[in-house]
Amino acid sequence: MTDFQKTRSLFQIPDGVIYLDGNSLGPLPRAVPDRVGRMIAEEWGQELIRGWNSAGWMTMPRRIGDRIGRLIGAPAGTVVIGDTLSIKVYQALASALELNPARRVILSDSGNFPSDLYIADGLLKSLARDHTLKVVTPEEVDAAIDETVAVVMLTEVDYRTGRLHDMKTLTAKAHAAGALTIWDLAHSAGAIPVDLAAAGADFAVGCTYKYLNGGPGAPAFIYVAPAHVERVRPALSGWMGHAAPFAFDLDYRAGPGIERLRVGTPPVIALAALDAALDVWDGVEMRDVRAASAALADLFIREMEARCPDLTLASPRDGGKRGSQVSFRHADGYAIMQALIARGVIGDFRAPDMVRFGLTPLYIGATEIRSAVDIIADVMTHRRFDDPAYRTRAVVT
Amino acid sequence: MTDFQKTRSLFQIPDGVIYLDGNSLGPLPRAVPDRVGRMIAEEWGQELIRGWNSAGWMTMPRRIGDRIGRLIGAPAGTVVIGDTLSIKVYQALASALELNPARRVILSDSGNFPSDLYIADGLLKSLARDHTLKVVTPEEVDAAIDETVAVVMLTEVDYRTGRLHDMKTLTAKAHAAGALTIWDLAHSAGAIPVDLAAAGADFAVGCTYKYLNGGPGAPAFIYVAPAHVERVRPALSGWMGHAAPFAFDLDYRAGPGIERLRVGTPPVIALAALDAALDVWDGVEMRDVRAASAALADLFIREMEARCPDLTLASPRDGGKRGSQVSFRHADGYAIMQALIARGVIGDFRAPDMVRFGLTPLYIGATEIRSAVDIIADVMTHRRFDDPAYRTRAVVT
Repeated sequence: MTDFQKTRSLFQIPDGVIYLDGNSLGPLPRAVPDRVGRMIAEEWGQELIRGWNSAGWMTMPRRIGDRIGRLIGAPAGTVVIGDTLSIKVYQALASALELNPARRVILSDSGNFPSDLYIADGLLKSLARDHTLKVVTPEEVDAAIDETVAVVMLTEVDYRTGRLHDMKTLTAKAHAAGALTIWDLAHSAGAIPVDLAAAGADFAVGCTYKYLNGGPGAPAFIYVAPAHVERVRPALSGWMGHAAPFAFDLDYRAGPGIERLRVGTPPVIALAALDAALDVWDGVEMRDVRAASAALADLFIREMEARCPDLTLASPRDGGKRGSQVSFRHADGYAIMQALIARGVIGDFRAPDMVRFGLTPLYIGATEIRSAVDIIADVMTHRRFDDPAYRTRAVVT
Repeated sequence: MTDFQKTRSLFQIPDGVIYLDGNSLGPLPRAVPDRVGRMIAEEWGQELIRGWNSAGWMTMPRRIGDRIGRLIGAPAGTVVIGDTLSIKVYQALASALELNPARRVILSDSGNFPSDLYIADGLLKSLARDHTLKVVTPEEVDAAIDETVAVVMLTEVDYRTGRLHDMKTLTAKAHAAGALTIWDLAHSAGAIPVDLAAAGADFAVGCTYKYLNGGPGAPAFIYVAPAHVERVRPALSGWMGHAAPFAFDLDYRAGPGIERLRVGTPPVIALAALDAALDVWDGVEMRDVRAASAALADLFIREMEARCPDLTLASPRDGGKRGSQVSFRHADGYAIMQALIARGVIGDFRAPDMVRFGLTPLYIGATEIRSAVDIIADVMTHRRFDDPAYRTRAVVT
């Protein structure tokens, strides 16, 4: 049984803050500063170039990949870390299209994170000029999977509403139609149980700065099903994916298995931070996280609907169809969120009208939920968001 | 006039080490640990998601890009940081080919870093199936530039020998033939004066973990000439390169100027380390660095040839045709370098037979050069590299 009192003690949350934005940037795990400090001072500072071997820098992308693999149902040796999520989407998509050469359609939905669609657009305009990107609504995906589709590319949990796709069912449907699947787990990994192997997913990608708490801009991960990986020919064929990077051959030969999805030199400082952040998950079972976060979300929705009726629930009411966030709509959503942040309730805003609250039992409990609703209710009841200072738009990720 | 006594004091070099491998991984600048520690504890830990605005994380790729721009003759607003060098090569190459659509040849040379060639290979097999990669020797490049060439893609300083291409002459030749140029500055930035604007370079890329001392796996940079940048359509079209990333439009619109070469979420911890590392360059003039490093290299070659005749100079003898490293060949090069590292003289080995020594006056002086040659001469004279322990190959980057 997961001990959430213990996991709470592993995070540094500032005094006066109720942090409901771990779905955008996870808070600082207490182990990170010291681990990164030692990596910099002792490994880089003392070992210098020797650190690639003596400190194990070169193998971090695989070793940390395996740590994440445990949380998403990926067998050891099927996940590797590096680059950004957008780059990993490009790799997965380029590879998947090549594995399904007779088909010409990439199927995605309007609930996908826009960057995934942008990456597909760039790829279509360059690499795959005879392909098309078909974007339907989330509800239409199932019916749109047909024998024209090469790849179904979806984000499992909608970044705005938290709506959850049924990975297992849609993957089976895709396979029955002869299509491959790419699952973006940005809002899944560390938030809900994922079982890539059981679902038969072909490719998966995700970031580590949300529910995995790896820090701002922490590197991404990619999973390729063992059945495919030896047939993958990387479009982004960098030296770290080469079979023998230090032979310095002039010709590219793809490395074994998931290694070939590596591209350039691994970002060691960021990997040290991520590695320390993942210690939080030792002894944590995703089914316990799911049960606890669903209970928190149900409590939050109940309290919000009772006390803040002007905010309209945008997330599925059924916890089984929802990831680990709860979102509401309001025409003044931006100003409301600014007012909340000023009061220490940190969630975020997604255009045009959505306020999002990420919930995770790792560091949030019922007490924080009730306190947050008290503040939200006060802001709504007294229209404290009418202050002009809260209406000036700024960039918020 | 650059004060090299001051720059030396800004680095932490372990006792007993003469570090001649800054061309592979620069040593730790003393400002880095504290800066990274504060970024993690105060910005991530206290500001949480607000750090994207309040701590300026979102604009770091451009701001730090401008700091590097000063060292490579790139005007403000023409350089942006992110990803790895391999990814930046892909972006430059995909863009350059599209800007020169009537041509079908990528011209490069066997002195280019293999990863650049691997990236071209991956791109040719996917994006540009009707193009070819023509690889000639470095000496043949000039003559091979003709009206079939779309892009001349070269690393300015050969990663093995330090041989220096003439950027200005080859760029002019390329332009006269209707070709574009991509310059990889991995072994140039921070090592020798580079003037991209004066040379008329079209694209340039580079890494920051060598002479710029950004730390293992520090992010890369890309330069696009102002004349081209508004016509570039990124193949890797991630959300950070979008004109309005936080509008979350479903359609991609390239951002203004160099911003469109950004891809995913910036690696903030690594950027904080790089930003601190670049403080070393405040008040440093590249022409002073060049003059001092050429003098060090001349001294090193003179002493080595006098005392270690079994090591054959592999670098150009003429300092004007050499970057900031000196390499020698020996059939036992690997074992020799292992023996040297065991004695505290850290250089590196490049297959099949080359020992490399990177020289920079930022933290190396004539005293270190003389001490290093004393140790190398002892190792060579007494064949201390015959120890079997030094003959076991391991991965060394």
